[in-house]
Amino acid sequence: MGRWEPNTRGRLAQIAHELFAEKGFDATTAAEIATRAGVTERTFFRNFADKREVLFYGGELLEAHVAQVVADSPATSASALVRAAVLSMAIAVQTNPGRARARHGVIGSHPELRERELTKMDGVVVALTTALVGRGIDGDAAALRAEVGVAVFKVSFARWVAATDSELPDVTRTVFDELAENADER
Amino acid sequence: MGRWEPNTRGRLAQIAHELFAEKGFDATTAAEIATRAGVTERTFFRNFADKREVLFYGGELLEAHVAQVVADSPATSASALVRAAVLSMAIAVQTNPGRARARHGVIGSHPELRERELTKMDGVVVALTTALVGRGIDGDAAALRAEVGVAVFKVSFARWVAATDSELPDVTRTVFDELAENADER
Repeated sequence: MGRWEPNTRGRLAQIAHELFAEKGFDATTAAEIATRAGVTERTFFRNFADKREVLFYGGELLEAHVAQVVADSPATSASALVRAAVLSMAIAVQTNPGRARARHGVIGSHPELRERELTKMDGVVVALTTALVGRGIDGDAAALRAEVGVAVFKVSFARWVAATDSELPDVTRTVFDELAENADER
Repeated sequence: MGRWEPNTRGRLAQIAHELFAEKGFDATTAAEIATRAGVTERTFFRNFADKREVLFYGGELLEAHVAQVVADSPATSASALVRAAVLSMAIAVQTNPGRARARHGVIGSHPELRERELTKMDGVVVALTTALVGRGIDGDAAALRAEVGVAVFKVSFARWVAATDSELPDVTRTVFDELAENADER
């Protein structure tokens, strides 16, 4: 891929989400996305296999993002590293909340997209586990912390989508705190 | 469905897994499963949409199972109810460990089955959340505990599959304890 392509992908993704919000996901075609972005349909398909894949562009970025945050964090414990990574995901989503909410609406109404979303979140678990192992965390502990961290993210995201006046990083901090508070109950 | 059908389904599922183990998932046909079970192919397809769906028969049972365990448990806190439900899932899997391991092998080598598996586990999260709410747990807390409980199950299952000499309920208890121990680290 040339250096220009990541920007084209990002621009196509942004325009696609605008169209999904305006006229609905099903009624939007790849050709329309390309036209509004000022590129050919062929360029669209060089960047994305189909219009569904556009919805998961941000997810790919998240994988790279959590890996970087874990690599660079001053924290040393598995749970602190995961908390930093998941909060950072929440901050990234909060930079474009309208898009995240629109995307959530599309995915919620298409079961096959929900499947793909779960697979992508599983990809984040794998990326996070690998990053933790890279910081010297034992593999078993890394897998547990990563899986639980992504569970916290899913729950936080669902609460945030349901409550219009909240910020995702705040919700995520609250959920992490709830998890810690009740952990000793049996 | 008639009363006999759950038993037919269970028998078809058992025979299908034997064939998957003997000759591989891809080489096994619905017709062969039906023949060995002594039923017609049409009966097979009345019970399962396709041979892939046979792999997820146990998952449907798990949903009903966790709902029952939560409804009947003497525990009252969300985390104790989830621990009881997830341990009970582990015990159910341990009753037929060979089948669980064979199934895991098939799913691991077919990405589209892995997607379906994630979706089914998400169904367990929903069933568990609903059951917790039915026991008077607040909806937000229920969703968090259910998601984390299923995360613990996934991690425990992965460890158990990797270590041939362990029992899944023991591994699951260990993972719950690890989760509780490190919850206060920031």
